[in-house]
Amino acid sequence: MQNKSPVIIDLKFDRQEVATALKGAFADREVIDLAHPANKARDLSGIDYAVVWKPSADLFSRANDLKAVFSGGAGVDHVMTLPGLPEVPVVRFVDPTLTTRMSEWVVLQCLLHLRQFKAYEALNAKRIWRELAQPEAKEVTVGIMGLGVLGSDAAAKLRVMGFEVVGWSRRMKQIDGIETFDAAGLDAFLARTDILVGLLPLTADTRGLFNAALFSKLRRKGALGGPIFVNAGRGGSQVEADILAALDDGTLAGASLDVFEQEPLPLESRLWTHEKVFMTPHAAAASDVRALFAHVEQQISRLESGQPLQHVVDRQAGY
Amino acid sequence: MQNKSPVIIDLKFDRQEVATALKGAFADREVIDLAHPANKARDLSGIDYAVVWKPSADLFSRANDLKAVFSGGAGVDHVMTLPGLPEVPVVRFVDPTLTTRMSEWVVLQCLLHLRQFKAYEALNAKRIWRELAQPEAKEVTVGIMGLGVLGSDAAAKLRVMGFEVVGWSRRMKQIDGIETFDAAGLDAFLARTDILVGLLPLTADTRGLFNAALFSKLRRKGALGGPIFVNAGRGGSQVEADILAALDDGTLAGASLDVFEQEPLPLESRLWTHEKVFMTPHAAAASDVRALFAHVEQQISRLESGQPLQHVVDRQAGY
Ligand SMILES: NC(=O)c1ccc[n+]([C@@H]2O[C@H](COP(=O)([O-])OP(=O)(O)OC[C@H]3O[C@@H](n4cnc5c(N)ncnc54)[C@H](OP(=O)(O)O)[C@@H]3O)[C@@H](O)[C@H]2O)c1
Ligand SMILES: NC(=O)c1ccc[n+]([C@@H]2O[C@H](COP(=O)([O-])OP(=O)(O)OC[C@H]3O[C@@H](n4cnc5c(N)ncnc54)[C@H](OP(=O)(O)O)[C@@H]3O)[C@@H](O)[C@H]2O)c1
Repeated sequence: MQNKSPVIIDLKFDRQEVATALKGAFADREVIDLAHPANKARDLSGIDYAVVWKPSADLFSRANDLKAVFSGGAGVDHVMTLPGLPEVPVVRFVDPTLTTRMSEWVVLQCLLHLRQFKAYEALNAKRIWRELAQPEAKEVTVGIMGLGVLGSDAAAKLRVMGFEVVGWSRRMKQIDGIETFDAAGLDAFLARTDILVGLLPLTADTRGLFNAALFSKLRRKGALGGPIFVNAGRGGSQVEADILAALDDGTLAGASLDVFEQEPLPLESRLWTHEKVFMTPHAAAASDVRALFAHVEQQISRLESGQPLQHVVDRQAGY
Repeated sequence: MQNKSPVIIDLKFDRQEVATALKGAFADREVIDLAHPANKARDLSGIDYAVVWKPSADLFSRANDLKAVFSGGAGVDHVMTLPGLPEVPVVRFVDPTLTTRMSEWVVLQCLLHLRQFKAYEALNAKRIWRELAQPEAKEVTVGIMGLGVLGSDAAAKLRVMGFEVVGWSRRMKQIDGIETFDAAGLDAFLARTDILVGLLPLTADTRGLFNAALFSKLRRKGALGGPIFVNAGRGGSQVEADILAALDDGTLAGASLDVFEQEPLPLESRLWTHEKVFMTPHAAAASDVRALFAHVEQQISRLESGQPLQHVVDRQAGY
């Protein structure tokens, strides 16, 4: 125990959940939870590991001997842009609980749009019994941007539900039953897509990508009467003014958003209650904190026994 | 052409859809569409086939030489109870378009309840940014009553989405990955079930089955905070007064209903806008009329070439 490095915890998650998950975690080393006032002025030099979600701006100047940084979530934009990030491996969180939850959310949103949920809600409010013409899933193509851990699981499940699926990623991918496109094929991909699903990391390349120009390239003659935009990647990849304008002028027929340019979503945003929008508060796929600590322990034990770390971020690509 | 029996069409569907689908259907025989005023007084004796959905009460006295009756939908309760139904095969409609659509609807409803759609809608209306504790699909057991064509497809897709699934049918079934129960195992099945999905035909045995006594046997300690009732079989199997009472007193935490005791749902029903209920107007899985006629043509050609009909109703069981 004595010679094992402590682990720093700097997670801007629900406190209770972190406290509960810490019970029984990291049994063989000390835990320094920066949420405890006692650790406010603590000397963090000489410590090897930090588990972080939106860490404090001064973390890396205080903890200046880190050997690895573990992200509390699948995304790492919250840490990659932080001043003083040391040149050590940054490990992202990959876990079946997170992947399953994201696919639940994505499939739910695609079905809500396919099955005309808002139109039926409006009819029900007026007590009008009317069956609407209903395309089948196979008449609708879902285009997924980002075919990583999350995008490829969502793709497979959307296929099972009957949707046509096409996919787009930086490097060309081969996925059974799914037509794929790489960066150069973006326009062809968009022209095929009725429901666009964003599952991209936020990087210099993806910032502001979901904008008016992109929406205007989506297929307009699909079975849903207009294209739909769904995003659960990062809000920084979308331009909300363009989403609202596209919904207003009919370029988009609907949207589902879990992530926003600014979070919490500002009170004055029209997205809270827009009649064409489904929204959730960055809740599509919460990190299960117990699973997170189990993953970090596993990675630390790989490192300490000389095996390579998994899920290490490519610093050049930014994810 | 001359010696092929005409086919009677008595479908209380959207007229336009039937007319469109009839173009090109039954090219080798005459079609007698009873919706045409010209056919009002027509002699229907000597005709072999009728395709019906909620047929006129006098159909079977007029068409008294039928050799087979084809149901316009998967359910046959609309015809089994009709006076004068001849002792000939009644064929139900089974088609992938119908099955896929039903599974879309069932998976959508289960995900709406799992992902706390109504709770988020209420928070959004107040512009409150709050992430709710979120069980995973695998912590929730969907119990499907009726493991026929529709129930078994829904079961497989719910499994892919991560739900635990148990199933109940009249005769014991074996389905991969799903624990099954037969009639005698009803109470054990209900005690395992968090989301109850009804995909049963309406028969003497299933009439009024979904009632207060049954709801009180559902699992109360599941991850959703209370049991959910979902029905897309037939409204005659449910007791709506009991559903409302169960929602009011917390025996049920929510419901999704596509079918009703009386359809259209009476204007005064509280179910139209109940804050714990999702409803659709018997629209879960519309019969694709083109696919219906293709199926009927296929069955007639089987019959005329001496092969056995498929999907014939068991008169004893009533479905
Ligand atoms: N809303 C939530 O609750 C929530 C929860 C978890 C994660 N997320 C977000 O979801 C993102 C994806 O997670 P993941 O685990 O699937 O990540 P991942 O496995 O790293 O996959 C990322 C995918 O995006 C593609 N990509 C990245 N930059 C691109 C670019 N410039 N052009 C085209 N494609 C690009 C990658 O292409 P290659 O295949 O060529 O590398 C890869 O297919 C995370 O970064 C996070 O921001 C959100
Ligand atoms: N809402 C809509 O839009 C819509 C659309 C299509 C159909 N439906 C309804 O869905 C129903 C099911 O369709 P399907 O194609 O799946 O029918 P199916 O293939 O005939 O299956 C019926 C299932 O119900 C079971 N069952 C029947 N009576 C039972 C009883 N008394 N106790 C226990 N189990 C019983 C059967 O058990 P066994 O396996 O032992 O026979 C079978 O598993 C139709 O009858 C129709 O009413 C609704």
